Amino acid sequence: MPERDGQPERDGQPERDQQPGDVQLLGAFWRYEKALATNDLDTLDLLFAPGAGTIRGDAAGILVGHDAISGFRRGRGGVAARDILHVQVIDIADDAALVIAVTAPLTGGRGQQSQLWRREAGSWVVAAAHVSLPAPAVNPSIWRTVGTPLVVGAATGALAGETVAVKDLYDIEGFAVGAGIPAYLAESAPASGTSPAVASLLAAGASITGIAQTDEFAYSIAGRNPHYGTPPNPAVLGALPGGSSSGPASAVATGQASIGLGTDTAGSIRIPASYQGLWGLRSTHGAISMDRLVALAPTFDTVGWITRDPATLRAASQSSLDAAVQRAVEPRFAIAPALAVHVEPAVGDAFTAAVDRLDASEVDLGDIDELFLIFRTVQAAEAWRTHGTWIRAHPGALGADVAARFAFASTITAQQESAGRRALQDARARLEAVLGHRVLLVPSASSTAPSVGADAELIERTRQDTLRLTCIAGLTGRPALSVPLLGVPQPGALLPAPAGLCLVGPRFGDLALIGLAEDLTTAG
Amino acid sequence: MPERDGQPERDGQPERDQQPGDVQLLGAFWRYEKALATNDLDTLDLLFAPGAGTIRGDAAGILVGHDAISGFRRGRGGVAARDILHVQVIDIADDAALVIAVTAPLTGGRGQQSQLWRREAGSWVVAAAHVSLPAPAVNPSIWRTVGTPLVVGAATGALAGETVAVKDLYDIEGFAVGAGIPAYLAESAPASGTSPAVASLLAAGASITGIAQTDEFAYSIAGRNPHYGTPPNPAVLGALPGGSSSGPASAVATGQASIGLGTDTAGSIRIPASYQGLWGLRSTHGAISMDRLVALAPTFDTVGWITRDPATLRAASQSSLDAAVQRAVEPRFAIAPALAVHVEPAVGDAFTAAVDRLDASEVDLGDIDELFLIFRTVQAAEAWRTHGTWIRAHPGALGADVAARFAFASTITAQQESAGRRALQDARARLEAVLGHRVLLVPSASSTAPSVGADAELIERTRQDTLRLTCIAGLTGRPALSVPLLGVPQPGALLPAPAGLCLVGPRFGDLALIGLAEDLTTAG
Repeated sequence: MPERDGQPERDGQPERDQQPGDVQLLGAFWRYEKALATNDLDTLDLLFAPGAGTIRGDAAGILVGHDAISGFRRGRGGVAARDILHVQVIDIADDAALVIAVTAPLTGGRGQQSQLWRREAGSWVVAAAHVSLPAPAVNPSIWRTVGTPLVVGAATGALAGETVAVKDLYDIEGFAVGAGIPAYLAESAPASGTSPAVASLLAAGASITGIAQTDEFAYSIAGRNPHYGTPPNPAVLGALPGGSSSGPASAVATGQASIGLGTDTAGSIRIPASYQGLWGLRSTHGAISMDRLVALAPTFDTVGWITRDPATLRAASQSSLDAAVQRAVEPRFAIAPALAVHVEPAVGDAFTAAVDRLDASEVDLGDIDELFLIFRTVQAAEAWRTHGTWIRAHPGALGADVAARFAFASTITAQQESAGRRALQDARARLEAVLGHRVLLVPSASSTAPSVGADAELIERTRQDTLRLTCIAGLTGRPALSVPLLGVPQPGALLPAPAGLCLVGPRFGDLALIGLAEDLTTAG
Repeated sequence: MPERDGQPERDGQPERDQQPGDVQLLGAFWRYEKALATNDLDTLDLLFAPGAGTIRGDAAGILVGHDAISGFRRGRGGVAARDILHVQVIDIADDAALVIAVTAPLTGGRGQQSQLWRREAGSWVVAAAHVSLPAPAVNPSIWRTVGTPLVVGAATGALAGETVAVKDLYDIEGFAVGAGIPAYLAESAPASGTSPAVASLLAAGASITGIAQTDEFAYSIAGRNPHYGTPPNPAVLGALPGGSSSGPASAVATGQASIGLGTDTAGSIRIPASYQGLWGLRSTHGAISMDRLVALAPTFDTVGWITRDPATLRAASQSSLDAAVQRAVEPRFAIAPALAVHVEPAVGDAFTAAVDRLDASEVDLGDIDELFLIFRTVQAAEAWRTHGTWIRAHPGALGADVAARFAFASTITAQQESAGRRALQDARARLEAVLGHRVLLVPSASSTAPSVGADAELIERTRQDTLRLTCIAGLTGRPALSVPLLGVPQPGALLPAPAGLCLVGPRFGDLALIGLAEDLTTAG
């Protein structure tokens, strides 16, 4: 096979003897490299083959089609400066060659770039590229502190070998809690003990890999943190990870941990699980101690776990749940057609296709907007009661989104809260009467993961729609399990975007829900 | 451009319509995948193109040539089980195609594999492969604990923006010291203060990324740790990183930190710097406080730094060194031809070529074996005094190599030690008389980085030879700077293996050495 070195260009000319075609090809290669260095987007676009078949992949995922790649470049704001240490050309045909470059980012380490170049209409263009960059010590958007492990678990147990990403709300003895906010972390002393939900995982043999990021005070479902960055969503390149248990979810999705320990008040387990194609269980409200854990709205706050598979989810849940009070759940399903208006059509279609074969009965949950208003009023009042004093004392400590949410929360009057609590009792009774022993099936979120670059209005609308789906579990205290059963084709990607099918079961039916979901996945 | 999906095979047949060539190609692809899963080395060899031009790259580096790739596979012991989520074929010509696979390791995350397949003599074989795997949360062979950052430095200073990998010998307030030994770590309490060498980096604005691995009690120069693994050497795929400051060096070489804070008793800064193509300074003995730092042999122990460039090394050194006692050093060089016998020919040739233009005078250091014996005797006596009690109380806590070294150290009698100390005084006086104000030039190590798989005898011989080069700085207390100026072609790789040119300067000429070395690199 013909193959030659291509040394870095000096004064515009490659150093080694080259055939005429090589000179052209290496000229295009160095033009591309220069355009990268100057973020010359038009030249980069010109040097990638037009059409839907062009491919570019890196550690974050694979983009398909010239336009998707171009859009990605326009959003990333340039690449880190680098040297090219070596260029290797593998000739394939007159009009095709693979060019492999050893890259050296100025920030250290080495990378590799493999490009399939083709000559089309006399010009060399990249038809496929595979880019590897050196990995950072740790991804700060996922993790705050990591050990190898950070805390060793018991020598034996059902979770031996499992690794946990603990949401930065839980006390771990010897480590401070940050709750996603650097100013809060700066004032936190190392914890003098460990939260029961963490301790039970350790006792079952899991070790703690590290402390994972959260949306500020867990008061968001987007998965964005203005201080530490947006964790990656490996299932949907360039999309939000979902929150607020964003760090634990991304840690599990990327394979950096096998169990994400999170919390769920209004969907903070279910939404990142749905967006990233993971299993996520919000436990029955009150089933697990919330000691040594930064609260948000205690009436709705729950412990929960995110995993890649049901067996690990079951084992993690069993470590904390009291088996004596867990109950069996029959496979009797309900759906609430009125919720459909809050679901993106493609997700709705996938949901309908999945539940059609389940013989689910239709139920009327009442006025969804009213239910959400009740949830939101009590949640906001409690969130302000929990954190208002700290927030008032630390102006500017929070990002705009969460600050605005707390500002709203601060306006809830005592009278509004009382009315909300009364309405909550009524709503709970009504919902329990309607649902009974049945398992309500809903999409875990109103959409697949929105793009990181989506405008604020779209993200807010998605949030409003999604919270209408998630609040049913919150209002009733029921457990809710997001199962990665749905998929929606996504433009510019090889694989569909995942979405969760959510099972909202009777209280203390947590483990039974996992069993039902396993039956669903194997029955498919 | 023609391009089609290639779905995972079912019952031996691809699901989609395929042209006859495709069926063959995808057949070969799935045969390769199956051989990977079963670690069927012969089939893997058969499916990679023979010859010197075949290329395989992953995050660790690039291998060139069928034999190098085959040897790598034979050494790695198989790959982690994985699913293939998607296969994309890009046709290039009748006898060439790029096959891109989205991989999903069973341990989570997603990878990408790009393979250039060619049909040679009727059979499809891989001519080039580029493999990306999901990164772990943290590389445990490099790091023990990592934060984002672990400790924040001063808001401003000469080292603002720099990130430090601290060898696991230094106290950092709130964190335990492990010294590369889990049993030692298990008994360590969180430090109640921070070592001066760490504090001065923080005061100059650097932040601490994490605590990096070391050879056990720093009593080795190989860079292997039986508990935490062998850190990578990104400059020489499959080679030892050098030690004992192995974690800090690999952190800097991989770009995961910009400053490695290490120690150097017998070469523990200089050797990993040499093996990995980095700058490494062993400071003048006694110039920097060794408080709150696990000692090995206090007569020789020094603080030191490893960086990718001289400017960062200078800034890091200046943060700790007292400028008032630093001295100027003239560019008057010496070489000791008698050392050549301890240097691998290829490194010796590179060294000779580099120093030939420097007009270095030849000096006679005396009997090198005798000098090394003096160094070794005093070092061993002190090492046993430092750690003997702990080692006796913890049988089995150390790996075989370091345990054997301490076992030897335990045999040094008081009489031998006294004789060694007297001989040390004499040797020091003699060496000072010979060297005077000159800068001794030696290869930093006797060889480039040995292969991880090298046999124990080769590694021991390399160690014996290298220590004869490094002990001159130890005996005299002189500063020694390893400069990545030498390179040796390595089979199976695109780039030469680095080696260090070491400048052993007058005491308190630390900073001046960096200036001299910069002149050497720019004069090239």
